[in-house]
Amino acid sequence: MTNNKPLVGAAVIGQSGGPSSVINASAYGVIKTALESDCITAVYGAHHGIVGVLNDRLMDMSKEDPKELELLPYTPSSALGSCRYKIADPDVDDTDYKRILEVFKKHNVRYFFYNGGNDSMDTCNKISRYMKKVGYECRVFGVPKTIDNDLYGTDHCPGFASAAKYIATSVMEVSRDSQVYDKGMVTIVECMGRHAGWLTAAAALGNAAGDGPDLIYLPEIDFTMEQFLADVKRVYAEKNNCLVAVSEGVHYADGRFVSEAKTSGTDGFGHAQLGGLAARLADAVKNELGVKVRGIELSLLQRCAAHQASLTDIEESFNSGKVAVESAIAGETGKMVGFVCDRDNGYVCHYELFDLEKVANFEKKVPLEWITPDGCHVTDDFIRYCSPLVQGETKLRYENGLPRFAKLKKVFAE
Amino acid sequence: MTNNKPLVGAAVIGQSGGPSSVINASAYGVIKTALESDCITAVYGAHHGIVGVLNDRLMDMSKEDPKELELLPYTPSSALGSCRYKIADPDVDDTDYKRILEVFKKHNVRYFFYNGGNDSMDTCNKISRYMKKVGYECRVFGVPKTIDNDLYGTDHCPGFASAAKYIATSVMEVSRDSQVYDKGMVTIVECMGRHAGWLTAAAALGNAAGDGPDLIYLPEIDFTMEQFLADVKRVYAEKNNCLVAVSEGVHYADGRFVSEAKTSGTDGFGHAQLGGLAARLADAVKNELGVKVRGIELSLLQRCAAHQASLTDIEESFNSGKVAVESAIAGETGKMVGFVCDRDNGYVCHYELFDLEKVANFEKKVPLEWITPDGCHVTDDFIRYCSPLVQGETKLRYENGLPRFAKLKKVFAE
Repeated sequence: MTNNKPLVGAAVIGQSGGPSSVINASAYGVIKTALESDCITAVYGAHHGIVGVLNDRLMDMSKEDPKELELLPYTPSSALGSCRYKIADPDVDDTDYKRILEVFKKHNVRYFFYNGGNDSMDTCNKISRYMKKVGYECRVFGVPKTIDNDLYGTDHCPGFASAAKYIATSVMEVSRDSQVYDKGMVTIVECMGRHAGWLTAAAALGNAAGDGPDLIYLPEIDFTMEQFLADVKRVYAEKNNCLVAVSEGVHYADGRFVSEAKTSGTDGFGHAQLGGLAARLADAVKNELGVKVRGIELSLLQRCAAHQASLTDIEESFNSGKVAVESAIAGETGKMVGFVCDRDNGYVCHYELFDLEKVANFEKKVPLEWITPDGCHVTDDFIRYCSPLVQGETKLRYENGLPRFAKLKKVFAE
Repeated sequence: MTNNKPLVGAAVIGQSGGPSSVINASAYGVIKTALESDCITAVYGAHHGIVGVLNDRLMDMSKEDPKELELLPYTPSSALGSCRYKIADPDVDDTDYKRILEVFKKHNVRYFFYNGGNDSMDTCNKISRYMKKVGYECRVFGVPKTIDNDLYGTDHCPGFASAAKYIATSVMEVSRDSQVYDKGMVTIVECMGRHAGWLTAAAALGNAAGDGPDLIYLPEIDFTMEQFLADVKRVYAEKNNCLVAVSEGVHYADGRFVSEAKTSGTDGFGHAQLGGLAARLADAVKNELGVKVRGIELSLLQRCAAHQASLTDIEESFNSGKVAVESAIAGETGKMVGFVCDRDNGYVCHYELFDLEKVANFEKKVPLEWITPDGCHVTDDFIRYCSPLVQGETKLRYENGLPRFAKLKKVFAE
């Protein structure tokens, strides 16, 4: 429902969940647009997301140096601080909501923007519903962020493309490095993605240049160690080399993560083994094939590599924050900004609003038809989907040879 | 001894040892200068270093597209292929040397440039001595490369600065990421460096911007687990967070690598544990402090991250190859090109020649006076040394949002 009466009051922006290298671009889209708006009287950054609201720790964004704020789109991690706070169902326990309402009333907060992934959209939705229920007029918006790319409705998620670009670039570089010797090697690169394989699939972007992985394993397909070892063996026999990209979330048919399942391989005593999936698979290959193997875990690097962010991602992330504020001022509430994209005549991205109710807690996976029938690579359809998203290089500023990230003063409101 | 008579004949360039993200910049310095020289009649790339010479697998560089060769300075890994072939002492077994001489005579090779680290300079030196001994006139030059930065004589080594820039950047990004939550975390970043701590020390470059590690451990100082845990505990108590950079080569006083020493911690049975040093230290911190810990191993990424190479490093690497060819043509032989740098009035790098005899097999470590007295950080002297080396960003070309690396045709000589 749209309400066109201008609503005057303060705005709060919070960041939540795992950060990305462009989540601050979205936050800057919100902050800049809100600071420039006539009906928004103050712009507060919640320190550590909803926890900052509960603790009344609100940072006055008008007190920041605009030159520092301009660096936000190129600054990784959540500049306002993040949290992993699971808010209760308001019908079961409304303590937190009463407190949020109290803080909102104290600062006359009439706009709330929450910048995060699945759980954050759920939090956002619950707050929206509660404010409606108690009759406190507050426009609530989700500003999406997740490198996992698993949010419902939107074509893709801010943050995904930059992680994808970093992964594709790193895998291209590792591909060159791992083929350098006259002796063969198997290299296994582990990418994030517990339930959806988008990030790992992005490694395939390097294949067009001849520097991509030979094999790709996603959590969308049940994993079997036998098939994996047979695949590696086949490729290695052909090429005297094999490069594998694998999602941290690959699992056996019974649902056990490969990274967590007890093995009888190295340690017959069933002890918890150190090291992640890449190390475990490397060990299995070594035992089976007896060749040189290296496991590489991209770990946190892939979600904070601002130096290799996608300019397309930065711009779309900024715009999603901007559109959220403009839509809220125009009277919309209870929505998430999402993307609808056209790839038929060049790439065009439209910004649309999705009901939070529909977005919250639904995970979007890589379509099975985008995975090759043998289950160990992705199709050209995935490349056509992903390639436009990684276009353009970051405008990150360098100072003394190193990135110059934003430094916030963090001036707290009374 | 300098011989000013112009020597007419072919040149061979080979690459050896672990690659770097700028080793091809050095190779391009050799190839371009040699192709443009009047007295060098042909320029061959040895396929996989000295192994390529032994196998008479020489690639004709004049057959390559000059536009592709121009991309070499921005292309990671060894474009000609590398090897880890340990050549015998010619006084003990001269089989390989006879074969090298045979191949050199066949192609009238009068210039040999070997692009690598410690072992490669040793190979180079042995070939130089042998050719002199048998009276075959061939000018032999070492063109240095090693991210380990441990070559004797030269101020620093081509390849080090780009790895340093990648490490400092990644640690800055991880620093932002690891402090994002309202709950504390210990993060341990493992860098390469088996015997010298240069790369790990480079993480300290981010400290000036407030995004560097709290603790740094180098192999130059004996490691004790007790002190390490006490250090982490102290920092965590102060900051509710702790970021550690550690060299893969840290070792106990008795010389055992921490990464390999049997522990009685997790696995009382003394089984080989999966995962590297970072995972092992993370486990120790978790057991001792009971806090959230994450271990990150930079692995191959740090030596092939051409996308974050230092322009200073690229230019110096190119010049070292160029100077090698020019010096060889001028009559020098049995030398390695090295750097002598002035940092007092801005940074100036001079190219000088070092006797291979003196360079081979000597490892240069981080001076102990550049490590803080508490053994867990580096001093400003290190920063003054390292900072000029990481200045400037790569001019890597992008195509379709991803790096466009050189593609060689590899046309082999008859």
